[in-house]
Amino acid sequence: MRITVNRNADTPIYLQIKNQLRDMIFSGVLPVDFLLPPERSLARELGVNRSTVIKAYQELKADGLADSHVGKGTVVLPQTARVPAAADRYINPLPWYQLFTESITASHDTIISDIMARTGRDVISFAGGIPAPGLYPVAVLEEIQAELFRTAGQELFLHSPVEGCYPLRESIVQLLRQRQIAAAAKDIVVLSGSQQGLDFAARIFIRPGDTVIVEEPTFFGAIQIFRSAGARVIGVPIDKDGLRTDVLEALLVRHKPKFIYTLPTFQNPSGISLSLQRRYELLDLAYQHQLPILEDDPYGELYYDTTPVPSLKALDRHGYVIYLSTFSKALFLGLRVGWVTAPPQVLAKFAHLKQMTDLHVNTPAQLLLDAFIRRGHYERHVARLRQEYAGRRNAMLKALDKYKVPGIGWNKPAGGYYIWCRLPDNIVRHKLVANAAKRGVVFLPGEAFYPDGTQGDTHIRLNYTFAEPEQIDNGIKYLLQAVKETTCANYEEECQHALKPLV
Amino acid sequence: MRITVNRNADTPIYLQIKNQLRDMIFSGVLPVDFLLPPERSLARELGVNRSTVIKAYQELKADGLADSHVGKGTVVLPQTARVPAAADRYINPLPWYQLFTESITASHDTIISDIMARTGRDVISFAGGIPAPGLYPVAVLEEIQAELFRTAGQELFLHSPVEGCYPLRESIVQLLRQRQIAAAAKDIVVLSGSQQGLDFAARIFIRPGDTVIVEEPTFFGAIQIFRSAGARVIGVPIDKDGLRTDVLEALLVRHKPKFIYTLPTFQNPSGISLSLQRRYELLDLAYQHQLPILEDDPYGELYYDTTPVPSLKALDRHGYVIYLSTFSKALFLGLRVGWVTAPPQVLAKFAHLKQMTDLHVNTPAQLLLDAFIRRGHYERHVARLRQEYAGRRNAMLKALDKYKVPGIGWNKPAGGYYIWCRLPDNIVRHKLVANAAKRGVVFLPGEAFYPDGTQGDTHIRLNYTFAEPEQIDNGIKYLLQAVKETTCANYEEECQHALKPLV
Repeated sequence: MRITVNRNADTPIYLQIKNQLRDMIFSGVLPVDFLLPPERSLARELGVNRSTVIKAYQELKADGLADSHVGKGTVVLPQTARVPAAADRYINPLPWYQLFTESITASHDTIISDIMARTGRDVISFAGGIPAPGLYPVAVLEEIQAELFRTAGQELFLHSPVEGCYPLRESIVQLLRQRQIAAAAKDIVVLSGSQQGLDFAARIFIRPGDTVIVEEPTFFGAIQIFRSAGARVIGVPIDKDGLRTDVLEALLVRHKPKFIYTLPTFQNPSGISLSLQRRYELLDLAYQHQLPILEDDPYGELYYDTTPVPSLKALDRHGYVIYLSTFSKALFLGLRVGWVTAPPQVLAKFAHLKQMTDLHVNTPAQLLLDAFIRRGHYERHVARLRQEYAGRRNAMLKALDKYKVPGIGWNKPAGGYYIWCRLPDNIVRHKLVANAAKRGVVFLPGEAFYPDGTQGDTHIRLNYTFAEPEQIDNGIKYLLQAVKETTCANYEEECQHALKPLV
Repeated sequence: MRITVNRNADTPIYLQIKNQLRDMIFSGVLPVDFLLPPERSLARELGVNRSTVIKAYQELKADGLADSHVGKGTVVLPQTARVPAAADRYINPLPWYQLFTESITASHDTIISDIMARTGRDVISFAGGIPAPGLYPVAVLEEIQAELFRTAGQELFLHSPVEGCYPLRESIVQLLRQRQIAAAAKDIVVLSGSQQGLDFAARIFIRPGDTVIVEEPTFFGAIQIFRSAGARVIGVPIDKDGLRTDVLEALLVRHKPKFIYTLPTFQNPSGISLSLQRRYELLDLAYQHQLPILEDDPYGELYYDTTPVPSLKALDRHGYVIYLSTFSKALFLGLRVGWVTAPPQVLAKFAHLKQMTDLHVNTPAQLLLDAFIRRGHYERHVARLRQEYAGRRNAMLKALDKYKVPGIGWNKPAGGYYIWCRLPDNIVRHKLVANAAKRGVVFLPGEAFYPDGTQGDTHIRLNYTFAEPEQIDNGIKYLLQAVKETTCANYEEECQHALKPLV
């Protein structure tokens, strides 16, 4: 029996025992007719006198909570008198779905989580956006963590400032300097991943009915969160130089969007980067139309051929760019640390939301990352990733070429995580995920990356950072076998059905 | 000069150098007339042939980006032709405040962060809700962390499931069992503190204009977040038995609230607990009016006299209660880990919001807490806290009695973190914070804890867990000196002013 006795408390011990038994009776932990332990054995268990337990049981009986019968012991009585009237009535279950807000009720697409759930040990996964676990610098982190326990001690578990630990903000300033972005520690707010930055941007800017412009295709998590805030999400097509600024201009005039969300460098899912010329054009359009730019840069440091052109934030001279980045792609996802740098008025709103929604980012993660950067490990690690990931990208490109089937096409990304792959026209698209999974390969279909889901079914996204290099060749082989199998020839009925006129 | 050379890349090295210089020129890192390093010294720095650097400089010159003069070296040219037309125009700054949503524009109260900022080493702080740093079990955590590096390795830094690591959810089930709450691991979603649970509840239930009922006084963070979601926040008064169910009934009929938010056990800020009889009455009212109950229980395990009565969640038989709790008060704030247990329809919405807003809680913190609980450290630690905090509470009660001034009053909390202290009537309330701070003592004024800020100025909240036991006596002495000083007698002008009729 789970009863605790506190000898330092003001309440007498017999009353402590009685109160705990009473609570267990009220809450149903001890049901009606439950036989309480004999006084002697409970006394022994609790290390108290038998007379103390006897007194506790007497109190219970006096309250009408229990009764004793010679030869039977002390049993719990029914609590009809104490249980509120409600217990006898029929209680309606709560109509939860009617209580939910519209934005939260709206069905959320489970296709991505369904596919992610298939990522087991026996599966070759090209689906996630996850850095290679085998490359995590675990030994270095172990050493730093042990040292932090010695030097920081209890500070590791104290709360941090809302905006983030100052040393980490200084370290982030150094990272930004390498990206040619001039910022001071005061210009940084540390967030729980750049994902949280997207959520906060939505809360800061979007009123239901507002329009937001995104690239088409773009990161599905951004579409989801902007839409959930009530935004109308409009896509701008991309070509080999990134988002088409000529189309954007027309859309700005027509829709007066609240902001534009862009991943200009090694874009997710296409791997394409916005050219320098287009960057200047985009900034110029933003200045003309007073359009804030939300720049998301998780992949910019992961270049495999030549350094990318500067970020929009680096090129902006008029404070129009809100810049998000993260440690999730260059290090690992598990710490959930990203950051935002933005003009001071906007940054104050990010800090306000951080304070209001979850106070601050996990302290030990901030101290760990700061030490990791300060000692030069970050730069070395990213340099190593560039080599490793370039190799995996090349392996995937080679395999695609080796096993290619008619009608398939793909780009050669200069950095980042993904190859964007066009499917043959004669494929039965909705069967491909299942057919590939049967062969042990998962990937993400393109639909999720389009604000209007119907347009993406011509493409799939292939990640090359997570799978082991020796799996990549096989994975692409099986995938392209699945593509070959999933043609109309093999699904004649479905394809014929698609041709029947609707009359 | 920050240039990196990748010998494995497909791009020739001279082009890599040229491209990086070009980017630095475009982004302004290298300004007009900047003197590039002599070819020989840059070649040495990068470990390449001098001819490679010469070729890179030639390319720059061919692009019109630089020029060489005998005896002067290579200098950066002005980029008029390349800079977009915008650079010459006047660019309007963005009208950020017009772009923000209403809820985010609404002024947020900075009084609490101002007071918290005063918590330095030379200040005796009764202001925060922070567990005693000296009691953090740092040595045990260090040992567990070192072991986790050996056993979990890279898993420490991998992403976790959205709902939380399964082992931690199992451990939380054990904690809940001790609180007489029956739940399974599938009924738990791990959150970034229970604060995040409040935010998610607001997003799930509140449409602008909805009403939410709270205790009066209540946790200021809850008032802030419900209001920011557009809710009208209505208070129910509390007495010595907690929230007044008789008043609540009338409010339910009148306002049809979306839910009631309650801290039934060792309430923040009053320290009061809802009696068992009132708990049954509250549940009965909820059942009658189909009212969801959002129960917040950060302090329930920190009882100092006798075990508290069961939580509402433990007493609820019809799935009306959403239960939030956290490790922030019984362990420490810095890890930012809390959880929710709720009926499955509601729990699915919490998980959906977690996925959408920040994916999951920091993985190493989850694994650390799980091991800490599983090995019995949590239970031992909380038992130790009960003793220590009981001592600090008693010290504060003793000091209040010792230094009391006429007109002051306070309750004796049976658990939790706070003493709720009534001020004398003749005090100039808005001067008290500053006068106490001058004496090196900080606390929280009562206003923040009332939905209608004007009612709380008769009380202040005193935390007794953070200050060292030997500081408590002095702190209360200085505080009550400040109270004595801040009477109308000493601020005659202001008090007279307050009496002038507005004509």
